[in-house]
Amino acid sequence: MSPNFCFIGAGNLASHLAVELNEKAGKVIQVYSRTEESARTLAEKIGADFTSQTENITSAADIYFVALKDSAVSEVLSRVDFLNKPLIHCSGSLPLSALDGFSSKTGVLYPLQTFSKGRPVDFSKIPVFVEANNRETLQLVQTLAETISEKVTSLDSEKRKSLHISAVFACNFVNHFYSLAAEFLESMNIEFDVLHPLIAETARKAIGMHPRKAQTGPAVRYDENIIDDHLTQLATFPELKELYSSISKSIFEHHKKS
Amino acid sequence: MSPNFCFIGAGNLASHLAVELNEKAGKVIQVYSRTEESARTLAEKIGADFTSQTENITSAADIYFVALKDSAVSEVLSRVDFLNKPLIHCSGSLPLSALDGFSSKTGVLYPLQTFSKGRPVDFSKIPVFVEANNRETLQLVQTLAETISEKVTSLDSEKRKSLHISAVFACNFVNHFYSLAAEFLESMNIEFDVLHPLIAETARKAIGMHPRKAQTGPAVRYDENIIDDHLTQLATFPELKELYSSISKSIFEHHKKS
Repeated sequence: MSPNFCFIGAGNLASHLAVELNEKAGKVIQVYSRTEESARTLAEKIGADFTSQTENITSAADIYFVALKDSAVSEVLSRVDFLNKPLIHCSGSLPLSALDGFSSKTGVLYPLQTFSKGRPVDFSKIPVFVEANNRETLQLVQTLAETISEKVTSLDSEKRKSLHISAVFACNFVNHFYSLAAEFLESMNIEFDVLHPLIAETARKAIGMHPRKAQTGPAVRYDENIIDDHLTQLATFPELKELYSSISKSIFEHHKKS
Repeated sequence: MSPNFCFIGAGNLASHLAVELNEKAGKVIQVYSRTEESARTLAEKIGADFTSQTENITSAADIYFVALKDSAVSEVLSRVDFLNKPLIHCSGSLPLSALDGFSSKTGVLYPLQTFSKGRPVDFSKIPVFVEANNRETLQLVQTLAETISEKVTSLDSEKRKSLHISAVFACNFVNHFYSLAAEFLESMNIEFDVLHPLIAETARKAIGMHPRKAQTGPAVRYDENIIDDHLTQLATFPELKELYSSISKSIFEHHKKS
């Protein structure tokens, strides 16, 4: 039996997950997004219907996936009757209980990865964390997760939130630092490309050895000459200067402890 | 003609560069380090002599490489007579002029990469930035650099410093965030390995598309629910909490501007 899915949400995560589930686990029959354009784009890619009106969300699906901004979940779901069918959200930060009252069968399927539209990822290697409000639904979510990923783990809401916080540091904040470096270089007419080998090796090192052992640079050596000189150089970049100062301190304090 | 090199310094960078130059460009005949153990370890790897005494630094080398902590350079060099032979430092942050007075032929060969002892790197792909105080020495440094790297660029001290600052953000600060994420997860008994695919993809994205376009997560969406919730969760981790707050603000401010 190949289940029919409805996707509520058509953002970065939904776009990837819907395509993957549609290919491996069943059929996505409808995509909802408040932004019609997003709903249409995703729906057309997988031959599904789409709607931007909550009242038109189908009751014909077997399983509903929710991939909305956390703050929108409750408001959108309260306008739909899910007829107690399995309702699964995909958020790292939202507890399972956020689905309470919207269905008797609730679950979470959280793929720990950064998704950007139009950028393919190998889903089979993505760690997926699952949770559910009863054994039967957990079994369902687990089975669905295992059709798309080789690394499925059961994890409660509290730990999933911690995982999400760690991902904010290791991905969102890291990427922001790539951005800051890029913009700083571009202001000097130096191409960001020169940092590519460094970025690749920094990531490879953290995967090959513990990042604590991989730490290099002026802050961990506490080379005050360089740190002060860099801060002077950043005088006309107050945002960078402030971050440079606070993160250098954090690195130094952190490694001093050991 | 295959030149003889002397290496002053035996840290992470020196260890890699000396091995590479010894293999491709000439013969390292001596390694100096204040720490005898470091000098010996590197020297034994390449069949060179070693010393931990500045007065024993050889006068028989054709070219001298300086790979010391910036703050130690001046003091160590002032104790040696280089007989006006080519003197080349390898620092991103130190200006060429830091070598003034120690030789009439001074240069810089700066490989933009993070080096950890015992971890091999493909030198041919590392961008190397060169500078010198006269045309002949520049030609020499350029030739040496080209024997080990396919990407050699001439760059002045001011721009090299900017490059180094950008590397601190894209590598040292990034790695610190990997560390913080690892320690936070470990405190929850979650293995850091679960972040490996995310770390790898975050780096690949920044190389494949501009990192500004790759930004994801609660801060760029300004999802206050998640941000506030994460800050609450981090109450017992004051260092993480402070960084989380300031970097989320920086991401939001940065993307608001566009």
